[in-house]
Amino acid sequence: MKEISNLLSYRDSIKVVDATLRDGGLVNDFFFDDDFVRCLYETNIKSGVDYMEFGYRGDKEMFDPEKFGKWKFCSDDDIRAIVGENESDLKIAIMADVGRCNYKQDILPRSESPVDLIRVATYLNQIPTAVDMIQDAKRKGYEVSCNIMAISSAQEGDVRAALDILGKTEVDVIYIVDSFGALYPEQLQRVAALYTEYGEKYNKKIGIHAHNNQQLAFANTIEAVGDGVDWLDATYAAMGRGAGNCAMELLLGFLKNPKYKVYPVIKFIEKHMNKLREDGTIWGYDLQYLMTGLLNQHPRTAIAFTKEGRKDYAEFYKEIVAMD
Amino acid sequence: MKEISNLLSYRDSIKVVDATLRDGGLVNDFFFDDDFVRCLYETNIKSGVDYMEFGYRGDKEMFDPEKFGKWKFCSDDDIRAIVGENESDLKIAIMADVGRCNYKQDILPRSESPVDLIRVATYLNQIPTAVDMIQDAKRKGYEVSCNIMAISSAQEGDVRAALDILGKTEVDVIYIVDSFGALYPEQLQRVAALYTEYGEKYNKKIGIHAHNNQQLAFANTIEAVGDGVDWLDATYAAMGRGAGNCAMELLLGFLKNPKYKVYPVIKFIEKHMNKLREDGTIWGYDLQYLMTGLLNQHPRTAIAFTKEGRKDYAEFYKEIVAMD
Repeated sequence: MKEISNLLSYRDSIKVVDATLRDGGLVNDFFFDDDFVRCLYETNIKSGVDYMEFGYRGDKEMFDPEKFGKWKFCSDDDIRAIVGENESDLKIAIMADVGRCNYKQDILPRSESPVDLIRVATYLNQIPTAVDMIQDAKRKGYEVSCNIMAISSAQEGDVRAALDILGKTEVDVIYIVDSFGALYPEQLQRVAALYTEYGEKYNKKIGIHAHNNQQLAFANTIEAVGDGVDWLDATYAAMGRGAGNCAMELLLGFLKNPKYKVYPVIKFIEKHMNKLREDGTIWGYDLQYLMTGLLNQHPRTAIAFTKEGRKDYAEFYKEIVAMD
Repeated sequence: MKEISNLLSYRDSIKVVDATLRDGGLVNDFFFDDDFVRCLYETNIKSGVDYMEFGYRGDKEMFDPEKFGKWKFCSDDDIRAIVGENESDLKIAIMADVGRCNYKQDILPRSESPVDLIRVATYLNQIPTAVDMIQDAKRKGYEVSCNIMAISSAQEGDVRAALDILGKTEVDVIYIVDSFGALYPEQLQRVAALYTEYGEKYNKKIGIHAHNNQQLAFANTIEAVGDGVDWLDATYAAMGRGAGNCAMELLLGFLKNPKYKVYPVIKFIEKHMNKLREDGTIWGYDLQYLMTGLLNQHPRTAIAFTKEGRKDYAEFYKEIVAMD
């Protein structure tokens, strides 16, 4: 199964996607300043990252633009203000959330947009809308991926049905998403086997988006690499909702393709990510996230625990066990 | 290979070893107060931990007792002051370091000591002394394990030679030690295959002691569980030298044997480990440890970086790459 198990070679088909602005934006309500975003863009180019996700294309009818930074909506104009004509090998991605995005109106044809890749995010029960969004984006000329969220609490039969439906669309990449940070590498291996089965059948690439509730986001991502998963999400300093994601610095240190360089990542973290932390933005592994991951629960209670500045971990454990 | 890959069962032969006082002591020079140690002992009993390592049996001729807390030396009397006659299922371990322990004099017969297990720690080039220490401890009636340190920078031929020598002794357990936090799970799997080959040949148990430089201490430990490794080191809140160890709270959450309980661990961390952090004791994953792990170097430069309060990570990276 582990085709690159000697760890000394690399696979050209691997793509690294920087999701810092999007998943990290869930931590600070997308209030990144332009200097941060511009420097992140330049760092991604220098470090050989393949795609940079700028945020959500959120529906302004649903979300108050006064309450969120602009990367919650990341208009083409806002992206252009950073990347210009994007004269680089780095491709631009945005996320379009089922039910939270007015995609027919807010996503223009690719020829009029700096965006290359539309990342459709869906729960299992929203697959028909996801399919419509995929078709819409493909018609407009984009590369398209689809994240099926929260699969650690789903029935395998339902996941199979979804993969079969998605396989028949024009989607380019289907993502394994461990929303709750609940999967162990051995489970991830089985999930990857399931997804790659459909990927081979329908000629789709498979991706992985991991969460670090049990300090396994990086471990699960490299497990997936060995299992034939090609698209890898990571964020700088692992910034992301709750316990955060797979750390870019760990991932680029692991990957052997000479185009990937870890030094620019370290420079960016030293200057920008550590400043975010010093200024009070909180993310990353902590006991409350371990607990929700262990119980395979949505991290929302753990996030609330963090936001309230609570330190009574044992009490919290009793609360969420009672809810289980 | 993954005999418990369904993750729903458990293996009776697994033993969990709490190394908080010993490896954590390397962070705070073993200055734990008695209340901490007593509460840790009681927590280990409640949470079903199998062995508690109290510290090093350091040679007082070599190390100044004024400069270290008592768990650098952990005399039988000091241990007895905590555990009394140890009327519990929890067994007591100490570490005896090759070249830093006057074992013939300082380790009494087991019948006169509260200690059950002597953990001999050795580098490859010290194996003959390790063998003498193993024989000495077995003659005195102890269970004995042997940690071969720093194997990620060793030749496989040398490791095989060492395993063959140790296999012929009366040692009970041989430990895989990833001192530099350099191993990926795929490599760990290969190392585990090597150790279990000798373990089966000589009827020895195999153990794993991991470090968290690349956030893989827990992942490597559960990889090892699946590979037939039975003795698992962990520390509360992952406290240990540099980037720390496999976190006890993650490990007990993972293991399915009903004797293991995670709730007492969480209570202890909330009350004691978080206080250590608040009081300024620093350990755990950070960029400088990632870098030494990635380069397969001893973490001493990264530990110095931490102690000096440096934040110039990029400069540090250039320094250690230059040393490589």
